[in-house]
Amino acid sequence: MENKDLIDKNFQKYMKIAFLEAKKAFDKAEVPIGAVIVSKDGKVISKAHNLTETKKNSLCHAEILAIQKACKKLNEKYLMDCSIFVTLEPCPMCATAISLAKIKNVYFSTVDEKGGAVVNGVKIYENMKNLYKPTVNYGYLKEESSELLKKFFKNLRKK
Amino acid sequence: MENKDLIDKNFQKYMKIAFLEAKKAFDKAEVPIGAVIVSKDGKVISKAHNLTETKKNSLCHAEILAIQKACKKLNEKYLMDCSIFVTLEPCPMCATAISLAKIKNVYFSTVDEKGGAVVNGVKIYENMKNLYKPTVNYGYLKEESSELLKKFFKNLRKK
Repeated sequence: MENKDLIDKNFQKYMKIAFLEAKKAFDKAEVPIGAVIVSKDGKVISKAHNLTETKKNSLCHAEILAIQKACKKLNEKYLMDCSIFVTLEPCPMCATAISLAKIKNVYFSTVDEKGGAVVNGVKIYENMKNLYKPTVNYGYLKEESSELLKKFFKNLRKK
Repeated sequence: MENKDLIDKNFQKYMKIAFLEAKKAFDKAEVPIGAVIVSKDGKVISKAHNLTETKKNSLCHAEILAIQKACKKLNEKYLMDCSIFVTLEPCPMCATAISLAKIKNVYFSTVDEKGGAVVNGVKIYENMKNLYKPTVNYGYLKEESSELLKKFFKNLRKK
């Protein structure tokens, strides 16, 4: 089986792991976003959730933390042939980080019309000519991921 | 004196500190880019240089490291009223990180036509409507910063 097929076949499994990470963020009163990085042979290398409040650091997005963990674990500058699964469309920082780490495939659940930079906003992979371009797929678990975010912001407004 | 005037007055001093950071990177065979974060009262909070090779992590750009150090030092999620001085126009990852950290002013030495995202490429502050927009100034020490980068890439080609 081709690597891409292997990952595609297990797309739902990995996105569920990312979603469980998002739930962990929710339980910590963090914006609920989760990310998982998977090797070409389907092994989960790292998983992380948004921790900007806990870490008091506005760069601690799920994708950044997952990339940093994976680089450390593999002792590699690049995560070639890896895939990243995220519950929300990456912002320009994270979309560029994914590219700089040379992650091959990006999967995300729900689009982010305001803050997303992959299929929304500056569409970074299309418009930064010198960036490495991963493949992009999205949509699975979009209702669940979107509902979790809505629930978070609804709770926030109640406070 | 207004804070902005204070920083502007010492623009050259801070950019020289950033340039010395870039030189440290050069001496480690890293792409020579340096960054410094300065408080509104003119105190240097953090300085850093590119360490992508040393750390085996392609996200370890000078700006990211400087922001992370500053957040840790101040125990603050946001670096409001701070200024960042960088020797090269930030890439989309770093330009967005600067905005997410709510850094008030960005100063950089030389433009990066291929990889920059502030006055080149996607011009992120103009085109991502929901991003916090810092003020942008550039040009000081541009020859020195540009020469150091050219020297680095010339040496690299010799290998």
